[in-house]
Amino acid sequence: MMLLMARWQPDARGRLEAAAFELFRERGFDQTTVTDIAARAGLDKRTFYRLFGDKREALFSGSGDLEDVLVKAVSETDAAPFEAVVAGFRRVAEEFFAGRIEVVRVRQSIIDSSPELQERELRKTGSLAVAVAAALRAKGLGETTATLATDSGVTVFRVAYARWVSPGGDEASLADLIAEVADELRAITSS
Amino acid sequence: MMLLMARWQPDARGRLEAAAFELFRERGFDQTTVTDIAARAGLDKRTFYRLFGDKREALFSGSGDLEDVLVKAVSETDAAPFEAVVAGFRRVAEEFFAGRIEVVRVRQSIIDSSPELQERELRKTGSLAVAVAAALRAKGLGETTATLATDSGVTVFRVAYARWVSPGGDEASLADLIAEVADELRAITSS
Repeated sequence: MMLLMARWQPDARGRLEAAAFELFRERGFDQTTVTDIAARAGLDKRTFYRLFGDKREALFSGSGDLEDVLVKAVSETDAAPFEAVVAGFRRVAEEFFAGRIEVVRVRQSIIDSSPELQERELRKTGSLAVAVAAALRAKGLGETTATLATDSGVTVFRVAYARWVSPGGDEASLADLIAEVADELRAITSS
Repeated sequence: MMLLMARWQPDARGRLEAAAFELFRERGFDQTTVTDIAARAGLDKRTFYRLFGDKREALFSGSGDLEDVLVKAVSETDAAPFEAVVAGFRRVAEEFFAGRIEVVRVRQSIIDSSPELQERELRKTGSLAVAVAAALRAKGLGETTATLATDSGVTVFRVAYARWVSPGGDEASLADLIAEVADELRAITSS
């Protein structure tokens, strides 16, 4: 019975996420209710709230896995702090974004359409940064160094991601763009 | 009549802000309602909503003025982009934070107590960054340079601010801490 539950829950999550994504794309985020999402997935509203907490969260369900991969990559490398964070984001680019540009673009256009979703995205990025900074401190780095390396790395990722995802954006892979933008940041701050 | 309105509105804003700040400090943000705030200020709930939109906004009313000062400072200097943003934040530190450490600490502890307020703070910082990047682009800088210089400057400000505001934090002025942290960022990214 427990095994059945464990198997059933990921399926329900996946169906609700897919239903939410479709409906947000078709009707817009504000025009979609949790009742609509549950109905499209053939589940009830209570199941949605139990698994996601709120409507926004359906668009951010991969964020825990992404954080795990990033933290592991940052923890395991011997590189200097800023380089470690950049390398971590390049790993994330390869595992979560490579080959998914179309879906990522649609998702981003949904987020860009709603201040509520933008707030949630910022909070997720903030939580990611907290985890990366903690991983750097666990390597013995001081608070300021850990935070500066983390936030500079997040900046590099955000700029590279914005270039990659923009309609008619760069053809380069996200991982390559991250390396390129990191070089540009070095140039700007060393002036 | 219009003049009277124009004079009356800032007073109502100020009274509501002061009432909100007092109540958030006394009872906590979640335990305070807009009705409580309006009652403490001797005004009605509709006036609050007309002036602030929502309860969170009462804690962020200086953000427009701060943005104006920052953008003006960034626009007017001839310094290189990153230096221009750092100089802008030092100006902000002098005009908005110097001599106000006690009030700033209380305000920050209220924000730290509520994920909702943290989201709003992140959105305000995001909007500030958009305005600074626009000011840099208006000086003829490219998108990537403008964004990297802005976000690195925001990072420097945030780290310096966190040091300054933390209980038992640095004795240095916020403006001096900003200069110091900017140097540390240069060192980290030039490795």
